[in-house]
Amino acid sequence: MASRSRIAPFLRAAAARRSGPASACLLRQSVLRPAAARTFFCGSMRAAPEIKLTAEKYPEMQRGAYATLTAEHVAHFKELLGAENAVIDGVTRDASDDLAPFNEDWMRKYRGQSKLVLRPATTEQVSRVLAYCNEQGLAVVPQGGNTGLVGGSVPVFDEIVLSMSRMNGVVSFDEVSGVLVVEAGAILEATDQYLAERGYLFPLDLGAKGSCQIGGNVSTNAGGLRLLRYGSLHGSVLGVEAVLADGRVVDDLCTLRKNNTGYDLKQLFIGAEGTIGVITKIAVQCPQRPKAVNVAFFGLQSFEQVQRAFREAKGQLGEILSAFELMDNESQRMVSVAKGASRPMDEYPFYCLIETSGSNGEHDYEKLEKFLEDVMEKEIVVDGVVAQDQTQITNLWGWREGIAEALGHWGAVYKYDVSIPLADMYKLVEDVRERMREAGLVGTGDGDLVVGIVGYGHMGDSNLHLNVAAHKYDKRIEEVLEPFVYEWIAGRGGSISAEHGLGVAKKKFIGYSRNETVLGLMRDVKKLFDPKGIMNPYKYI
Amino acid sequence: MASRSRIAPFLRAAAARRSGPASACLLRQSVLRPAAARTFFCGSMRAAPEIKLTAEKYPEMQRGAYATLTAEHVAHFKELLGAENAVIDGVTRDASDDLAPFNEDWMRKYRGQSKLVLRPATTEQVSRVLAYCNEQGLAVVPQGGNTGLVGGSVPVFDEIVLSMSRMNGVVSFDEVSGVLVVEAGAILEATDQYLAERGYLFPLDLGAKGSCQIGGNVSTNAGGLRLLRYGSLHGSVLGVEAVLADGRVVDDLCTLRKNNTGYDLKQLFIGAEGTIGVITKIAVQCPQRPKAVNVAFFGLQSFEQVQRAFREAKGQLGEILSAFELMDNESQRMVSVAKGASRPMDEYPFYCLIETSGSNGEHDYEKLEKFLEDVMEKEIVVDGVVAQDQTQITNLWGWREGIAEALGHWGAVYKYDVSIPLADMYKLVEDVRERMREAGLVGTGDGDLVVGIVGYGHMGDSNLHLNVAAHKYDKRIEEVLEPFVYEWIAGRGGSISAEHGLGVAKKKFIGYSRNETVLGLMRDVKKLFDPKGIMNPYKYI
Repeated sequence: MASRSRIAPFLRAAAARRSGPASACLLRQSVLRPAAARTFFCGSMRAAPEIKLTAEKYPEMQRGAYATLTAEHVAHFKELLGAENAVIDGVTRDASDDLAPFNEDWMRKYRGQSKLVLRPATTEQVSRVLAYCNEQGLAVVPQGGNTGLVGGSVPVFDEIVLSMSRMNGVVSFDEVSGVLVVEAGAILEATDQYLAERGYLFPLDLGAKGSCQIGGNVSTNAGGLRLLRYGSLHGSVLGVEAVLADGRVVDDLCTLRKNNTGYDLKQLFIGAEGTIGVITKIAVQCPQRPKAVNVAFFGLQSFEQVQRAFREAKGQLGEILSAFELMDNESQRMVSVAKGASRPMDEYPFYCLIETSGSNGEHDYEKLEKFLEDVMEKEIVVDGVVAQDQTQITNLWGWREGIAEALGHWGAVYKYDVSIPLADMYKLVEDVRERMREAGLVGTGDGDLVVGIVGYGHMGDSNLHLNVAAHKYDKRIEEVLEPFVYEWIAGRGGSISAEHGLGVAKKKFIGYSRNETVLGLMRDVKKLFDPKGIMNPYKYI
Repeated sequence: MASRSRIAPFLRAAAARRSGPASACLLRQSVLRPAAARTFFCGSMRAAPEIKLTAEKYPEMQRGAYATLTAEHVAHFKELLGAENAVIDGVTRDASDDLAPFNEDWMRKYRGQSKLVLRPATTEQVSRVLAYCNEQGLAVVPQGGNTGLVGGSVPVFDEIVLSMSRMNGVVSFDEVSGVLVVEAGAILEATDQYLAERGYLFPLDLGAKGSCQIGGNVSTNAGGLRLLRYGSLHGSVLGVEAVLADGRVVDDLCTLRKNNTGYDLKQLFIGAEGTIGVITKIAVQCPQRPKAVNVAFFGLQSFEQVQRAFREAKGQLGEILSAFELMDNESQRMVSVAKGASRPMDEYPFYCLIETSGSNGEHDYEKLEKFLEDVMEKEIVVDGVVAQDQTQITNLWGWREGIAEALGHWGAVYKYDVSIPLADMYKLVEDVRERMREAGLVGTGDGDLVVGIVGYGHMGDSNLHLNVAAHKYDKRIEEVLEPFVYEWIAGRGGSISAEHGLGVAKKKFIGYSRNETVLGLMRDVKKLFDPKGIMNPYKYI
């Protein structure tokens, strides 16, 4: 495209302040797609010390009065689901190795003791499985790609794992309206690829896309990288088919953008983490795939400047702004170490990644260029690079998306995914650093237990990821962090879980974000949908 | 703007096929803002024959076992609410005239028999009113601007009207994040004006904006003109404060874009039509106000061409497309009669109005111009005009927004607001016309009972407004329409209520859009939130 050459003024301005040449943005490192979710499948991990049982880690949790699996139960499930590969049976035989990937999370923080994994292939099978479990009093954990951060998809005791992986097909796609109907076990990336071939886009994108399943995304109300542009799943999910605890099928699989006939019950399943039923199919409104994507990456001297840049971007880029991501210096240092490569630019306290997506590449590029010239002229931004092609776009995104993996290399990561009013957003990271120093856990020399305290996230959604990487999980670190982090957030009207849900990790802290009336109603809703409490117990509320 | 001159080719192409000059798009008629909601306030209407009581129109409805208002109740409410203007008392004195606007709807289809209107000024007052009503067994109808089409906001028997009009303030607005917190009784247009002054936009726009209240918009999950661009309220409403039937306050007034802490209960209030509680405050994510708006209006030969034009518009205009409205010839004929003015162009079977909104007027205009040249070259569009300034934009919109008012002049209008898969969307209008002809209600000459059968609506949302205008409401018309229309829609997987809810009108037809499992859950939810059933009885489900 001819207009590509017009970025020169910006690159020159940037280059003048840098030691490297303008072409430094031609990153040569291989792409760091966040393989987070796949980590536990890799050979080296299997040699790692055994993960502590969740039940031992949280000794206050007691197994509920559920039935214990018998050989008769297993025989019944084998008859129900037919094919041998639909049941992984650790009741009548030893199947620990086969069960391990379903009992553990990829962060190695949670480990359950399930002896049975069921892999239904149809809604009818899910219905018959749950009706039987409900009748027999057997507890169940629905499981998608198992890429969560809060232990929501792994069992705690001996709950049956209901894996949705085999329900992974596209049911229908309407190329005029853009409405997709898909089974819950469909992998996000594969589904987006299917849509890409038809000129459409899945309205959600996130690091674990290669493994996570859409049913899990909807059940945890995943936000991801482009919520700023495409909105939340509460808006884009048009319909849901779900199976209740007693096996009844809720057919609310509406494919219409507008349907005002009664309470919008499907909304309750969005973000319910499988506690009131299992989502089996989803209807989603998919936007047209943008014809042009541009990415800029730049360095800033303070969080005040980041906020100014965000306001300018909203005003000047408006409808084409599809991501505004924040990364602090520490996060980029750690990605650099993990990659063994130098960064796209010099060190600055903060970096931002801006992405635009639109229908006319020349127009979009002109807007982005103008914006960048403007923020550099106003001295909001110190230095920046603009991707010249798809490889560079992927590489620049790698510096943002690679953070989770880079931190994962150190042995243990404490992850907080929180919403905080914008002005205060980064202060939490500074305050946590201060507390860690005071506790003598960092800044004492090479032997520090804590390796790095980083802040990054989705500026456009006021959504911060506070991550603390350490050599191992340790009570002393936890005591510095909790309940401090939750109290800090509650004091500023934030939310203790922006996009990763409650699971096991945050169950006891929900009171920081919700008052007693609301919690009471939630408990009533849970009772209404799942009176015997068999769905994903020990979690959520 | 210099680029404005570039529309010449398009206008010339259009002019060549028309008798009038290109400047025909300089409409001289005064703007027809849809004053639908205000109609019942105008003097001439008061002289019209009395509206039939809803209870007489639906004799199958029986008054529930609620308490009957006494002078003691009234005295208690006067004490609770303080100021004299907060209570319109028809119990201890005759107040029929004062009560009439609260007992009747603007379409003159519904009339209730309430003897008491309460006008609380705070959430605390709403809470105390409802707690008392619940304790005493008094039924309540929450009422916003009373601009609905299905009788949802007017009483049926002697329910107390809880008018939200006095709770109409802006609570807060964050100019960085664009999050607005507003009281339920705020008028939509006034609120949007407030936002306009700050560079933002309310993410909902509809004909009744001058009278409708945001609490009512949210309670009916209003869709409106720009859902295509800004999405549904389920996505843009971030938080809700509501008072339950027993007076408990649900404080779910979250101002964060992301908050995954428990079931998203606020979603149940969106579209619940006041049957599980009263919304008192709302937090909404408001988008930046677009810097440039362009409008084109064009004629097409068939509904197939309309669909082709829609696909092209989505592809070529992408992120700047903010409305794609459909109007049939009959609807424009009736607006023309009502206005006493000729249309912006010759007669065609269909017309479309396209609006773009973006951050760069020149870019947007270039895209729109290219699109129009393209669809005329492909002979999808026959003729078209483009607004040259704000007056023309308003005038062109008047031909779309004026339909409701134009039909209202004839005495009676049967209105169906439905969602139908796009390909079949207009066929409903044709089939209804055929049935009316067969029944001898149209096409017999000057004495026809039915004046016009028109189809228009939001093409972008697959949302059709089927309107049948008549000299008066008549059983024969109704029998041709119902249940035919609902069966027709159910047979095609549509929804019997796209954006106007259920109210009284569609209560008995919900089974066409919802199955028994879902209806059972809805009844359970209603029981959970309002065990005594005092909230807006006789309606919804």
